[in-house]
Amino acid sequence: MVHYQTRLDTTFAALSDVTRRGVLEQLGSSDASISDLAERFHMTLTGMKKHVSVLEEAGLVITEKVGRVRTCRLGQRRLEEEAAWIERHRQLWSARFDALDKLVEHMKREEKVDAQRKRR
Amino acid sequence: MVHYQTRLDTTFAALSDVTRRGVLEQLGSSDASISDLAERFHMTLTGMKKHVSVLEEAGLVITEKVGRVRTCRLGQRRLEEEAAWIERHRQLWSARFDALDKLVEHMKREEKVDAQRKRR
Repeated sequence: MVHYQTRLDTTFAALSDVTRRGVLEQLGSSDASISDLAERFHMTLTGMKKHVSVLEEAGLVITEKVGRVRTCRLGQRRLEEEAAWIERHRQLWSARFDALDKLVEHMKREEKVDAQRKRR
Repeated sequence: MVHYQTRLDTTFAALSDVTRRGVLEQLGSSDASISDLAERFHMTLTGMKKHVSVLEEAGLVITEKVGRVRTCRLGQRRLEEEAAWIERHRQLWSARFDALDKLVEHMKREEKVDAQRKRR
């Protein structure tokens, strides 16, 4: 359970940056070296290395060094747990707001009955 | 587009903490005051206020002060954009790994043909 929560903490933190999300989108279409990524996102090599290492720690990216080039590709994590957490939240959310809607409907009906009674 | 990315940054950051996710789950079943939440999550009032304010900035929670009590409830944001982003990533991920599988299959077949040729 602790591991599950730690994984969610790490992944959501990794996803909370526009460049890191961009890198994942890029690697979704093709593998790329860190210098390719740095160029594409107009960043220094050092800046990009930091972003990639955050993604690597979250298991979202795997890097491999061949000669002088470090190539990045998508990691094994498919964001299944994150998708499931968000889906559960959305269901709870809908249930809460449906209940609120029903309450408002009920109050409206009561008010109508009350108004009819007064008219008699 | 910038707003969209900023919203994703803010929401994913808000979700990257186990207590904040717990607060959202709690508010999914019933509204609660900040002191209720502090007690339930074994935190100081100040600590809980900080978490709630992060959730409030992300639009995930709305707070209302009546008298001395500040009550929290789920906000209007349903994590639709976040769910959509994750879903797109999962599709890209599957496409990448399917392509890899096909490549491996192709290489295996070529190897087999090659071995058969050598045997003749």
